[in-house]
Amino acid sequence: MKKVVALSGGVGGARFVHGLSRALEAAAETVDLTVIVNTGDDFEHWGLHVSPDSDTVMYTLADLAHEERGWGLAEESFATLEMVRRYAGDDWFQLGDRDLATHILRTQGLRRGETLSQVTARLAGALGIRAHLVPMADGPCRTMIDTRDRGTLSFQDWFVRHRAAPEVRAVRFEGDPPPAPAVIPAIEAADLVVFGPSNPYVSIDPILSLPGVRAALAGRKVIAVSPIVGGRAIKGPLGTMIPELTGAPPTAAAIARHYGSLLAGIVVERGDEGGFEGPVAVHACDTVMRSRADSLRLAREVLAFGGFEVPDAITRSITP
Amino acid sequence: MKKVVALSGGVGGARFVHGLSRALEAAAETVDLTVIVNTGDDFEHWGLHVSPDSDTVMYTLADLAHEERGWGLAEESFATLEMVRRYAGDDWFQLGDRDLATHILRTQGLRRGETLSQVTARLAGALGIRAHLVPMADGPCRTMIDTRDRGTLSFQDWFVRHRAAPEVRAVRFEGDPPPAPAVIPAIEAADLVVFGPSNPYVSIDPILSLPGVRAALAGRKVIAVSPIVGGRAIKGPLGTMIPELTGAPPTAAAIARHYGSLLAGIVVERGDEGGFEGPVAVHACDTVMRSRADSLRLAREVLAFGGFEVPDAITRSITP
Repeated sequence: MKKVVALSGGVGGARFVHGLSRALEAAAETVDLTVIVNTGDDFEHWGLHVSPDSDTVMYTLADLAHEERGWGLAEESFATLEMVRRYAGDDWFQLGDRDLATHILRTQGLRRGETLSQVTARLAGALGIRAHLVPMADGPCRTMIDTRDRGTLSFQDWFVRHRAAPEVRAVRFEGDPPPAPAVIPAIEAADLVVFGPSNPYVSIDPILSLPGVRAALAGRKVIAVSPIVGGRAIKGPLGTMIPELTGAPPTAAAIARHYGSLLAGIVVERGDEGGFEGPVAVHACDTVMRSRADSLRLAREVLAFGGFEVPDAITRSITP
Repeated sequence: MKKVVALSGGVGGARFVHGLSRALEAAAETVDLTVIVNTGDDFEHWGLHVSPDSDTVMYTLADLAHEERGWGLAEESFATLEMVRRYAGDDWFQLGDRDLATHILRTQGLRRGETLSQVTARLAGALGIRAHLVPMADGPCRTMIDTRDRGTLSFQDWFVRHRAAPEVRAVRFEGDPPPAPAVIPAIEAADLVVFGPSNPYVSIDPILSLPGVRAALAGRKVIAVSPIVGGRAIKGPLGTMIPELTGAPPTAAAIARHYGSLLAGIVVERGDEGGFEGPVAVHACDTVMRSRADSLRLAREVLAFGGFEVPDAITRSITP
């Protein structure tokens, strides 16, 4: 059986793995899919453990995600939040009523002694998800944003409360947990590893920062999907972070440069093929995912580029 | 300033203290009201600390309670519960979305190191409640039901999951916390203590079981409102518990007998004046509370019976 591993942050990565899981279901042979999700954005809110990226991937794979909003569940309500406001409680982070069930059951599981990996697998399984959804670590590893004018902020504080406005000086990770038990074995067994079209600094780097992950990846075929399209980030603060952190313009080539020798190839938007250095293979296609059909098509391109036999995918492969 | 203390369980007690707070606002002089609430029914659900009686009193005093259902909030929704079901989580206890805000903020407060008294005062204050709402204890004291056929059950297990059907052999309290800091001082300073029309075994006895409470009450003027009307409990399992636990029929006199020498007087439904023993003063009036007007009228009767000058209350007093 072939094995594919995807590294993912939130919305972009989630949409991509949705396409990936559908593409693999239609593949010529059985393929095992493991999604390793960034937990650097995890935080405690209302005393509950919230895993934003993990939940976005889970809801997206279960076809429960709110498509336009990019976070939370479709058909969501906010009655608890409204009552929390009445109690003068924290209301800067919007947790929906249905979404709350996830945080409540996760927190209950963790307090009972389950690991984050175990809780995540249990919840994803209950929603009928067949891919292995794996948090990058069971222990805390928190993404911290060093800003120019506001000091150091936790990721959610910077991203949600301050709307990602404060200029970023550096991104750091606090806490040094081992990767979750499934992470290294999954990477070591992978025929293909894909970095989803997620923010490299705050979504993929937290995973890469964990001990042993870069070493495990070094022996694998790794393809990234560029989150930069035509010089802009599809979503989120990446378009300004690249110049703030590197001084270079936000291009697909800057993404490849960031990942360096880890990458065998990168999939970019048509027109973004310029500026690449070194031996990285570049494949250009339509990468913007506006629909599930787009995600499926992109996933097929990536799989074919990665050497998989994918029905209906018309593309070239980096492996002969 | 005069001081009144009420001991309360859930719905009946909550309705009574609602009337009491309104009656005292209209009293001839400023009166301080402290409501000591049973926490023997408290339990953990979904990893959250739920205080059913405390919440019923709080919601009722804030005019937010669901009038017919007898628990929870008016205009409630159950989106979180529906999602918990989808995760195959516990769904035997119905927590509404707005109600959840209370349990979430309470649990968060407790985990941060606030006492139950502090959290309760903070939440009640945020809802605009002027009475002092005091949980009977900050530490756990759990009401356990010894049943004939099902062994020993926690109160919620017996009451909600088993619908109070298993025959009761005995009621016990597990845990031996001191009363909450405000309990004994409030009783010792009280000009009048009222036991609301609550179940004596599972709502008032937990409070009386705490060290020092009976001794403090011994020096006070204590009036009970009978929860038995015409040989039946208005609500809940008391009608069957009295014969199961004492062999005697469920009467107002059985309530007075249960409290014994603690009581100076008891307020009963008209027609329930029979069978009393000893020196307890009995006052009969309409005690069934179908509306807020009923609660207010009953509270005025009780206050006047307790020696307060209450405008518009036409009744006799046990104190000259």
